[in-house]
Amino acid sequence: MTDTPIQSEQTAVTAAASAAYRNDRAHVVHSWSAQASLDPVVVAGGSGSRFWDESGRTWLDFSSQLVNVNLGHQHPKLVAAIQAQAERLCTLAPYHANEATAEAARLIAQAAPGDLDKVFFTSGGAEAVENAVRVARHHTGRVKVLSAYRSYHGATAGAISLTGDPRRWGAEPGMPGTVKFWGPYAYRSAFHSDSEAQECERALAHLADVLMVEGPHTVAAIVLESVVGGNGVLVPPDGYLRGVRELCDRHGIVMVADEVMVGFGRCGEWFAIDRWGVVPDLITFAKGVNCGYVPLGGVIISERIAQTFAHRVFPGGLTYSGHPLACAAAVACLNVYREEGLIERVRRLGEELVRPALEQLKSRHPSIGEVRGLGMFWALELVRDPASREPLVPYNATGADNRPMAEFAAACKDRGLWPFVHFNRVHIAPPLNISQADLRTGLDIIDEALNVADRYLVQ
Amino acid sequence: MTDTPIQSEQTAVTAAASAAYRNDRAHVVHSWSAQASLDPVVVAGGSGSRFWDESGRTWLDFSSQLVNVNLGHQHPKLVAAIQAQAERLCTLAPYHANEATAEAARLIAQAAPGDLDKVFFTSGGAEAVENAVRVARHHTGRVKVLSAYRSYHGATAGAISLTGDPRRWGAEPGMPGTVKFWGPYAYRSAFHSDSEAQECERALAHLADVLMVEGPHTVAAIVLESVVGGNGVLVPPDGYLRGVRELCDRHGIVMVADEVMVGFGRCGEWFAIDRWGVVPDLITFAKGVNCGYVPLGGVIISERIAQTFAHRVFPGGLTYSGHPLACAAAVACLNVYREEGLIERVRRLGEELVRPALEQLKSRHPSIGEVRGLGMFWALELVRDPASREPLVPYNATGADNRPMAEFAAACKDRGLWPFVHFNRVHIAPPLNISQADLRTGLDIIDEALNVADRYLVQ
Ligand SMILES: Cc1ncc(COP(=O)(O)O)c(C=O)c1O
Ligand SMILES: Cc1ncc(COP(=O)(O)O)c(C=O)c1O
Repeated sequence: MTDTPIQSEQTAVTAAASAAYRNDRAHVVHSWSAQASLDPVVVAGGSGSRFWDESGRTWLDFSSQLVNVNLGHQHPKLVAAIQAQAERLCTLAPYHANEATAEAARLIAQAAPGDLDKVFFTSGGAEAVENAVRVARHHTGRVKVLSAYRSYHGATAGAISLTGDPRRWGAEPGMPGTVKFWGPYAYRSAFHSDSEAQECERALAHLADVLMVEGPHTVAAIVLESVVGGNGVLVPPDGYLRGVRELCDRHGIVMVADEVMVGFGRCGEWFAIDRWGVVPDLITFAKGVNCGYVPLGGVIISERIAQTFAHRVFPGGLTYSGHPLACAAAVACLNVYREEGLIERVRRLGEELVRPALEQLKSRHPSIGEVRGLGMFWALELVRDPASREPLVPYNATGADNRPMAEFAAACKDRGLWPFVHFNRVHIAPPLNISQADLRTGLDIIDEALNVADRYLVQ
Repeated sequence: MTDTPIQSEQTAVTAAASAAYRNDRAHVVHSWSAQASLDPVVVAGGSGSRFWDESGRTWLDFSSQLVNVNLGHQHPKLVAAIQAQAERLCTLAPYHANEATAEAARLIAQAAPGDLDKVFFTSGGAEAVENAVRVARHHTGRVKVLSAYRSYHGATAGAISLTGDPRRWGAEPGMPGTVKFWGPYAYRSAFHSDSEAQECERALAHLADVLMVEGPHTVAAIVLESVVGGNGVLVPPDGYLRGVRELCDRHGIVMVADEVMVGFGRCGEWFAIDRWGVVPDLITFAKGVNCGYVPLGGVIISERIAQTFAHRVFPGGLTYSGHPLACAAAVACLNVYREEGLIERVRRLGEELVRPALEQLKSRHPSIGEVRGLGMFWALELVRDPASREPLVPYNATGADNRPMAEFAAACKDRGLWPFVHFNRVHIAPPLNISQADLRTGLDIIDEALNVADRYLVQ
């Protein structure tokens, strides 16, 4: 690797001189950050699994931005579809119909399991969750919504209240009627279980208990990520989602699978929940539906529940619902997934290449406490001590407390890899169409960077 | 006019046969509607102030879709900018910087009054309002937010709780800490005033009273539309917004001007509030910033308040914050407003053409209770009785109760005009660059259609 930290500082100086950098620093407020400490990369372009800054410095994108560019950067078919639709019709009020929106809805319904056949479009994931809650409340006539600790559902008032991570703290008191439960997470079990099977059983018993004490007839919905994304690539044990489905059925509760991060191939299925053959009542989506090339999200609604709004007003809306340009990008994107057989590729590569490679890393790096994931979605959970499982950095660490992870991330970036790092974990979420060679290159860089983490092991 | 209702039914039958229509009806859930009763127009294209369906039937767009296509449909400079940016870089995670985002932020800051110099981007108006509330609460350390009856602020949990119209009813109980007050509306005064000046004085006294009883030190923000949009084109009397500014200053309350509908030229100013020379602390925007060709919204934040997040984390975010494609469209759009002198044109045409024409209509149609507006933003308030001011249809009427307005709207559509109709009002909000000839054509159609309304006058 030729990029040394010294060169990287020089690059920053060059970038600092550009108008884009200056205007950004003068006028742009960035998400979830203290603004004075930011020194953002000015990204000038991207192609496939790589993007570069104004000086031409290039990174291999192992986080697919925010796990949205499932087809990588600037996929030619998506770019062409956007350009063609831009020529035809960019925008339209949501009370109209148009071809791009209708076709996107048809393809999404086709990809969705069971009778999930109707789509309400939004511009992003948080709005999708907001509208799923709206649908569930109106369908059931109940108010309460259950969601899990260690979850992220977006940052609007409703979605952030459902969120089970520190991003919620700044938005409290939140929306009334939200209740948290603990989901399965065998490596750090809330239930003191010692196997995946036991974790499954105990997590379901816990959820049943929460329902019992909350009063199941007061609960409109259970919202959960089919595979927990930002909070750790927590793959539920077999049987868990089916158990949740059964609890929902028993009590007339709407089951909402939040697939904003894991839908559309990320986990080697159209929707992650398909892996377990479970059909939720609502699916929220965004990101992978069109790689975020144009902002789009939505809720897929079962026919049965959609009937609630056949003769009663659907009590929600937004100016850009069903946006033609965004939907045209979705049509192209969904067709690429299908035509290029990407869903199957992801499933296969995940098991045949990524899992063994990561297990290999684990055998070489004692700082890796656990490897978990599926498809193109993996986490390495880093620890100071494999025996006690003490995390490499504390929960929600910042500043000096977070130094080991910051150094790990810097080591990746210096070597030309852009990692997804969160708390004490590195997530591996490259574009679904990344070449095998690039996948290996990236894993090799992580291998090197893990030496940094290993240095923090307790002796 | 050659389009009769019979032809319009035939068109619907043709449209019903298209794949787009069938897919829409099978798979798309539309905003704020009972789905079974919908018979949407399948819009195939648009240009300037017109759009057409699959059969080529064309409407003059007097509602600018949802008051967002300020430059009309398919403005060539916006289309070109979107296509060029699509070629370069469609999407990017919000922790990066890039040229389109930085330049859009610079231009927005330049257009904004006072020291409003920093922009947090969202994908739409509701998210903009959510984040304005977030900023105000963190800046002040207070929770309560005041907003007006007869307002709309979006449909996510926070924004809908601030909304003062029936769209909120389906979302209650809402976000804690919201309090409603009555804004000025001389034609139907909540304060029994008999002049604009008195309405101003009494509305400010009322707001001061609400603050007094709520405890001004508990109030984080007052959120209000500079000119109330969807709820009636309520232009505040001179002095009102200045009075609100003074109340905010006195009590350390953040003043939020929601300019999602009226910002970017609609009222003949960059921001409607500029007309009164008042500088709020935060401005929320969307729609006109890029005509909604790509979903975009945001909050403009004063330098002073932005300092709160210099060393403290800005506790909000979304995957598509600062979206390059959306921002490239904004850059093109803002440049068109400036280069084509549209802001001044709107101000002039509003006073010289639209106001006199509407006053003329009023003199001919006793169903017009009031004409009000400015720039390219007007309302005709229709009544059954000009003396008692009884509205032509009741508040929030549906079905048979709403028949007079439904017939009025149908009469416009049959004659080739797409109107913006809400409750007992027709709003006039064509693209800002509509030709004078088209403006007159549209007003002539409204003139004819008003005969329908006149038939419902009490004798
Ligand atoms: C599972 C999940 N839900 C919802 C969201 C919110 O989506 P957005 O950022 O588009 O509002 C995210 C974003 O990462 C997510 O991962
Ligand atoms: C004043 C105002 N605020 C907020 C909104 C919500 O914007 P969006 O529909 O983009 O969420 C609207 C929409 O019409 C609006 O008019």
